[in-house]
Amino acid sequence: MAEIRFAGTGSTTMMRAGKIVCLGRNYIEHAKEMKADVPTTPVLFLKPASALIPDGGTILIPSISNDVHHEAEMVVLIGTGGTSIPEADAMRHVGGYAIGLDMTLRDVQADAKKKGLPWTVAKGFDTSAPIGSFVRPEAVPDPHNLDIRLAVNGQVRQQSNTRSMIFRIEQMIAHISSIMTLEPGDLIYTGTPEGVGPVAPGDTITAELQHVGSLTVSVARRS
Amino acid sequence: MAEIRFAGTGSTTMMRAGKIVCLGRNYIEHAKEMKADVPTTPVLFLKPASALIPDGGTILIPSISNDVHHEAEMVVLIGTGGTSIPEADAMRHVGGYAIGLDMTLRDVQADAKKKGLPWTVAKGFDTSAPIGSFVRPEAVPDPHNLDIRLAVNGQVRQQSNTRSMIFRIEQMIAHISSIMTLEPGDLIYTGTPEGVGPVAPGDTITAELQHVGSLTVSVARRS
Repeated sequence: MAEIRFAGTGSTTMMRAGKIVCLGRNYIEHAKEMKADVPTTPVLFLKPASALIPDGGTILIPSISNDVHHEAEMVVLIGTGGTSIPEADAMRHVGGYAIGLDMTLRDVQADAKKKGLPWTVAKGFDTSAPIGSFVRPEAVPDPHNLDIRLAVNGQVRQQSNTRSMIFRIEQMIAHISSIMTLEPGDLIYTGTPEGVGPVAPGDTITAELQHVGSLTVSVARRS
Repeated sequence: MAEIRFAGTGSTTMMRAGKIVCLGRNYIEHAKEMKADVPTTPVLFLKPASALIPDGGTILIPSISNDVHHEAEMVVLIGTGGTSIPEADAMRHVGGYAIGLDMTLRDVQADAKKKGLPWTVAKGFDTSAPIGSFVRPEAVPDPHNLDIRLAVNGQVRQQSNTRSMIFRIEQMIAHISSIMTLEPGDLIYTGTPEGVGPVAPGDTITAELQHVGSLTVSVARRS
């Protein structure tokens, strides 16, 4: 049972994680590197809460894959739920921000895409959703202007800014909640910038989101 | 926050619904009618718990679709969680059975398949997971020999038996838990037999699973 943790000693509030809604192709340069069309409506997929691991955890590569990729993302916590939330009200539903990784079995995903099958295994395997501690919205001056960075073994692989997202947080919340009701504890993984690539057992991944925090995880094979 | 209900006045236990893992193409005749290959490993996708509606509820067709299909399915409740559960132990993890519907926006799904995109919207929209009351495993003589039936406005559209499932419950639990940890309250929608088809606003759907129970829902447009 995954729980949401907030940073700082003064804040011990815990929430149970609900559903995890993720955006694909939300940075133009990432859509290009994937040779994918730039979307006109958000591309949505789900991860189960059982995929969450905290800062300091270990990503376990399942035996069905030989090509697991890192994808650093800003993660939005829903604090107040709603259905068909208007864009103008959307930011009031945000309960916090964190840095997260949308770990992806790229070979399994490529096979699914080719066959028109769901992305569920490629995106939802155990340990596929590393997540840092959350900070309250008040701690973030402008969520649409945050440097985001990911390094593997100290070498920078992804470096961008959330201003380059195609869909803004208001648009995501309005769109998602027009299809599926958002509930307190739900998470939105907001998409990754360019620079995605493979990791291998023994690697250490560090990701940082400005004003929000950092996340360090290691990589191993699932036994 | 969706809750699991058990049938009968003596049983008031409530569990919070966790993730919903669904099998696609788990009956040969349904795979054929979809012009899809018969799978050699289970095809998995997720619905969010926010999609659940109880017996007596209303399926709301979203404006993005003109072709929503009924899919009657046996639903397995996970009572005891686990990771990499062996087939031989799997049935001990079952906490109950219910009849459910995997409502599907067939036009949205067809477009996603063509583009290699996720099935999430087609399968995860609000009200897409009607679910009846659960019965305890002891109430079901053999879950792999249950008549399953669905009628629209009293006219039978789907009629089969769970013995025709390609993957048995033990295999599903072993396979799913080798990829994603199963937790108490998780649900498995075990796939639908042949006979799927569209429903329209004003329709009434009734589905029955032998020894388990029935489910009646109506259909309307989402306003």
